[in-house]
Amino acid sequence: MAGNSFGTIFKVTTFGESHGEALGGIIDGCPAGLEVDLSLVQYDLDRRKPGQSAIVTQRKEPDEVKFLSGIFEGKTTGTSIGFIIENTNQKSHDYSHIKDSYRPSHADFTYDQKYGFRDYRGGGRSSARETASRVVAGAIAKQLLKNIKINAFVSSVGSLHLAKNHEELDLAVAETNAVRCPDSEMALKMENYIKDIRKQGDTIGGVVSCVIKNVPVGLGEPVFDKLHAELGKAMLSINAVKGFEYGSGFKGTEMKGSEHNDKFNTDGTTRTNYSGGIQGGISNGMDIYFRVAFKPVATLIQSYETIDKEGNIVKMQGKGRHDPCVVPRAVPIVEAMAALVLADNFLLNKVSKI
Amino acid sequence: MAGNSFGTIFKVTTFGESHGEALGGIIDGCPAGLEVDLSLVQYDLDRRKPGQSAIVTQRKEPDEVKFLSGIFEGKTTGTSIGFIIENTNQKSHDYSHIKDSYRPSHADFTYDQKYGFRDYRGGGRSSARETASRVVAGAIAKQLLKNIKINAFVSSVGSLHLAKNHEELDLAVAETNAVRCPDSEMALKMENYIKDIRKQGDTIGGVVSCVIKNVPVGLGEPVFDKLHAELGKAMLSINAVKGFEYGSGFKGTEMKGSEHNDKFNTDGTTRTNYSGGIQGGISNGMDIYFRVAFKPVATLIQSYETIDKEGNIVKMQGKGRHDPCVVPRAVPIVEAMAALVLADNFLLNKVSKI
Amino acid sequence: MAGNSFGTIFKVTTFGESHGEALGGIIDGCPAGLEVDLSLVQYDLDRRKPGQSAIVTQRKEPDEVKFLSGIFEGKTTGTSIGFIIENTNQKSHDYSHIKDSYRPSHADFTYDQKYGFRDYRGGGRSSARETASRVVAGAIAKQLLKNIKINAFVSSVGSLHLAKNHEELDLAVAETNAVRCPDSEMALKMENYIKDIRKQGDTIGGVVSCVIKNVPVGLGEPVFDKLHAELGKAMLSINAVKGFEYGSGFKGTEMKGSEHNDKFNTDGTTRTNYSGGIQGGISNGMDIYFRVAFKPVATLIQSYETIDKEGNIVKMQGKGRHDPCVVPRAVPIVEAMAALVLADNFLLNKVSKI
Amino acid sequence: MAGNSFGTIFKVTTFGESHGEALGGIIDGCPAGLEVDLSLVQYDLDRRKPGQSAIVTQRKEPDEVKFLSGIFEGKTTGTSIGFIIENTNQKSHDYSHIKDSYRPSHADFTYDQKYGFRDYRGGGRSSARETASRVVAGAIAKQLLKNIKINAFVSSVGSLHLAKNHEELDLAVAETNAVRCPDSEMALKMENYIKDIRKQGDTIGGVVSCVIKNVPVGLGEPVFDKLHAELGKAMLSINAVKGFEYGSGFKGTEMKGSEHNDKFNTDGTTRTNYSGGIQGGISNGMDIYFRVAFKPVATLIQSYETIDKEGNIVKMQGKGRHDPCVVPRAVPIVEAMAALVLADNFLLNKVSKI
Repeated sequence: MAGNSFGTIFKVTTFGESHGEALGGIIDGCPAGLEVDLSLVQYDLDRRKPGQSAIVTQRKEPDEVKFLSGIFEGKTTGTSIGFIIENTNQKSHDYSHIKDSYRPSHADFTYDQKYGFRDYRGGGRSSARETASRVVAGAIAKQLLKNIKINAFVSSVGSLHLAKNHEELDLAVAETNAVRCPDSEMALKMENYIKDIRKQGDTIGGVVSCVIKNVPVGLGEPVFDKLHAELGKAMLSINAVKGFEYGSGFKGTEMKGSEHNDKFNTDGTTRTNYSGGIQGGISNGMDIYFRVAFKPVATLIQSYETIDKEGNIVKMQGKGRHDPCVVPRAVPIVEAMAALVLADNFLLNKVSKI
Repeated sequence: MAGNSFGTIFKVTTFGESHGEALGGIIDGCPAGLEVDLSLVQYDLDRRKPGQSAIVTQRKEPDEVKFLSGIFEGKTTGTSIGFIIENTNQKSHDYSHIKDSYRPSHADFTYDQKYGFRDYRGGGRSSARETASRVVAGAIAKQLLKNIKINAFVSSVGSLHLAKNHEELDLAVAETNAVRCPDSEMALKMENYIKDIRKQGDTIGGVVSCVIKNVPVGLGEPVFDKLHAELGKAMLSINAVKGFEYGSGFKGTEMKGSEHNDKFNTDGTTRTNYSGGIQGGISNGMDIYFRVAFKPVATLIQSYETIDKEGNIVKMQGKGRHDPCVVPRAVPIVEAMAALVLADNFLLNKVSKI
Repeated sequence: MAGNSFGTIFKVTTFGESHGEALGGIIDGCPAGLEVDLSLVQYDLDRRKPGQSAIVTQRKEPDEVKFLSGIFEGKTTGTSIGFIIENTNQKSHDYSHIKDSYRPSHADFTYDQKYGFRDYRGGGRSSARETASRVVAGAIAKQLLKNIKINAFVSSVGSLHLAKNHEELDLAVAETNAVRCPDSEMALKMENYIKDIRKQGDTIGGVVSCVIKNVPVGLGEPVFDKLHAELGKAMLSINAVKGFEYGSGFKGTEMKGSEHNDKFNTDGTTRTNYSGGIQGGISNGMDIYFRVAFKPVATLIQSYETIDKEGNIVKMQGKGRHDPCVVPRAVPIVEAMAALVLADNFLLNKVSKI
Repeated sequence: MAGNSFGTIFKVTTFGESHGEALGGIIDGCPAGLEVDLSLVQYDLDRRKPGQSAIVTQRKEPDEVKFLSGIFEGKTTGTSIGFIIENTNQKSHDYSHIKDSYRPSHADFTYDQKYGFRDYRGGGRSSARETASRVVAGAIAKQLLKNIKINAFVSSVGSLHLAKNHEELDLAVAETNAVRCPDSEMALKMENYIKDIRKQGDTIGGVVSCVIKNVPVGLGEPVFDKLHAELGKAMLSINAVKGFEYGSGFKGTEMKGSEHNDKFNTDGTTRTNYSGGIQGGISNGMDIYFRVAFKPVATLIQSYETIDKEGNIVKMQGKGRHDPCVVPRAVPIVEAMAALVLADNFLLNKVSKI
């Protein structure tokens, strides 16, 4: 109710502040009997963690997940799965500069207004550190989905746009470079651009694209819980996201119906896929693909003026180790949220007909 | 659970097929004591209904709503509000052409696969006729929101884009033309373009923009139920929607943080509003604005080949009275869904602090 | 959220006041492809309806249900099932005597306090007339449950207690008499007693027992949603219910573990069934049985003193056609609620393991 | 969905097996700004913990709760509250005797059937050890409820029934003896009886009563979520509970309406309180009181025959340190669940009227 749960049957609830004792969550509704490979969970956490390359924040957080329940003798038991990730890096910081002031385009002001006060340490609950718990839950969801393959990758950094579409690309290339762009040449350009932005103490936005293959026909619950509506909510709930489009997206608005309609092959597949693998809110078996817009990170390593709680103008100096561009680390988060949506709809679909 | 409900406290559940007996719904969680002006409900229904202008479908459906419970002596009682809209136009149609065949880019195929069979009459539950119930519920939500003003309007039809942003426009102009575009000159161009498209038996996509003013600070429930995530889901659940962006949206991905950050005024408002009125998933009191992408309607008044249930190629001829462009009638639907999100979050926020 | 929905996957939401236009509801989550026998729905409604015998209220309400969606060509489509029951008897009453006064042990006072005012006509939403919608939804649930047989019956009226337990009785006998007691001799005593009570203008409480046979092993979702916890909530939500016990119930508290433990047969069934067919919140395949306590109806055909809204003492005279004892008509309601719980858990259990 | 959450706005989700790493939970929806006294949480945990007296299990579990998030500078922040209780006593046990066999009247059989296998160590998730998390959440809920006072106590052990009702008793006496019975003389009898039962290696059932004072008028959400229906579900979800009654309960079924109706005083209070503080599912400001039936613990320190997974008869010997009677330790659990229901309804009621 208060917004810390996601899903209906396969449901994850999370907790944890950026600089509290620990983050964690509970996965409820994961079917019993699923063999869990914990190394795959840690693998995704490592893809998200700080300090993994030269173009992300250099903070040190090991981000080791500990499962506390719900898995026994290597398999899920059908009971709730509790897990925690201890914050080892949370101590001895000095927050006096943000305690009583509001950083522009952060959640400092709105949390204070909504809740009356806030845990100001490193952004508290509003920090993207929270997404570590999502990655854990998503990694379990991926294992439930077996053959369904979810691949996210960076398709834009600032004005650098990947021209090729996902069918023309070898998506496996994305994991071979720090940017997570499946075109090595473009990846290098993006990497250099991000380094340049960092030197300026500035940040830049970008786009993460995602392709989901081998989706069974029938996932999605019309009318309000259409599959793409759930995917959209999932993506928009990630920190810094400003937009979501699937299939033809915004470009599709410029097309005529006679161009946009996906003609059927005799086996029920379609010749084109402007639909993005979803018709009427239900998967049609074609690839699902979508794009997620991330704004530039709000924390700049620059000095600037802002206001304090009383409305006085104050000077602030951005410091610390922050991401100059969030999209490389957002890739596993996008995949995790997609996995949560798919897992939930996979289970919901099991009770669609008698 | 099966997708026919929206909201957590202010919750609407709907039912009804395009050509069944009636559509309708139940609003649960509307606080008691709200004076309801039923003419405003009918006003919004009339804005959505077929036959209202030369550029929308010429079907005749009076779309009169009848409230059955939950309102007494002009006020809500706090109990569930039931309502129906009778389908007066549902009889004597011939559906033999779609009964056993799958129209491209419709939900015929996916409904059949998911549910084993389908109500093929006029698209059944997958028809946008379902949104009439949303408009009713949204019209009640609007009245709960009092001073919060929600204005949607058409900002693109195909490649015709409204250049001005919402602050440069008189939004009231939108309701003075058939397209619902707040720039009369552009409205005329769009109208002529849609007429042209119709003559071709074709359809065209478009974009509906929405601005919400006078939003109190504090609406939105992090982390999964961020206000814009709920708005995004709401919009993506509307038929034919392919994308959603708010604030700076996809364009914001090309900006630097130093450009994108919204500097505070001393009263907590901001000088720019790239954030789109939401920070960290919580409203900050600035205007909320977003854009919703609608694909071209899939029903063409042309002949084409498709497949039947057995995978045979069959010839079909689009006929009937369909919308050449969905966005003019989508305007009140976008507003209704926005109102549902706001009303729900308005109530949720009342229990955020002691 | 505001309490008018029941269930998680097989979910019913209802609306309607005693003397409004209509009652009704929406069933969401019923799987597609269920062949529905509408005459069985009407059969259960008729078992609940007023005027069916000399010992129930003599009001005339035909209680005919009309399905508006979700059923097509005799089968459920997987979309939401809307239905209404028109109130044909709601007009021209005089409510001046209860408009401003609070009848003792009714909900007049609490509704007024909670909601600020109330629909005073016939009790409004607090009237047991609301349960008609439950019976409709329950009758659909029963059909989903196929072999699972739910039989409720009257086991007490006042101090007249049926001595035999359910295994010693032919439960089919219950439907052969007006009281719905499966022991004809006792039924006659109860019937005469109720007639006597009515002559006094008084009312009397009673107990409805329920037995569920052929339950598959595995229904129920620990830990909070144990099968008996859901059954208990379902029963306690029925008007006038004061208690619920299953299996050994309150008498089981006086037993020793060595007496109470149900020893296994080699096939997994048990020799005794103090557990009431549920272990750890999950059905074990034995008969589920429980008892539901109904208080005496609060409406007396007597004159009495009470208070008005301003706290003044006022005289009231009970009048109209009311039930002297609610349990005969409560039998189909108990069955309906049990069916809703079982249907929901039947579906939930389909996603318990991979 | 899978049953590990309770509540709608004030919602707790729990995890943890009897002999896993840790138990714990997440409280979502607790309003911000609540000053939390952690010693009161530990106090209730200590009332529940093993080894506290001679008549409960002599296992040693410190049951220390650690809060991981959602509380900052002594106050709740409005974000989710995560907590864990480490299992310090979970190692080096020998479970070979229950691994492949089903103990009578335990959940061994049903868990195995539902989930395909089970964590057999100490009952896994079906162990009442799970209720420690409930007590933590309930202790936070109690603090939110401020003046509302919830007092549970033991009113029966086997056939030893407390004759006096709650108005004739000093409930504070309950916490002065090991049984938690508010009548010292009866407490001594019960204590001796339990000791006697233990010597026999047997167990005995009992009843926990609960009284809630200072309840504001208006709590409860008709029609399905009536306040007593939520209380009933809450109590029935506790391990070993077989029945629930409130107000006049099962005895009320033998009363006439003319006896049972609670006459009003001019201030809206009532002269009698057969209603148990709830009318039409909504609190009326009078004391809420109810009784909860607990069966005898199934684990006996005796030898007996049962079956293994293959249906073979096997000999088992109950061993270890178990409770001979569960009700003394159930008292804080009953209070905790009542507090969760009240807190949730307290918040829900804040949005009942405009």
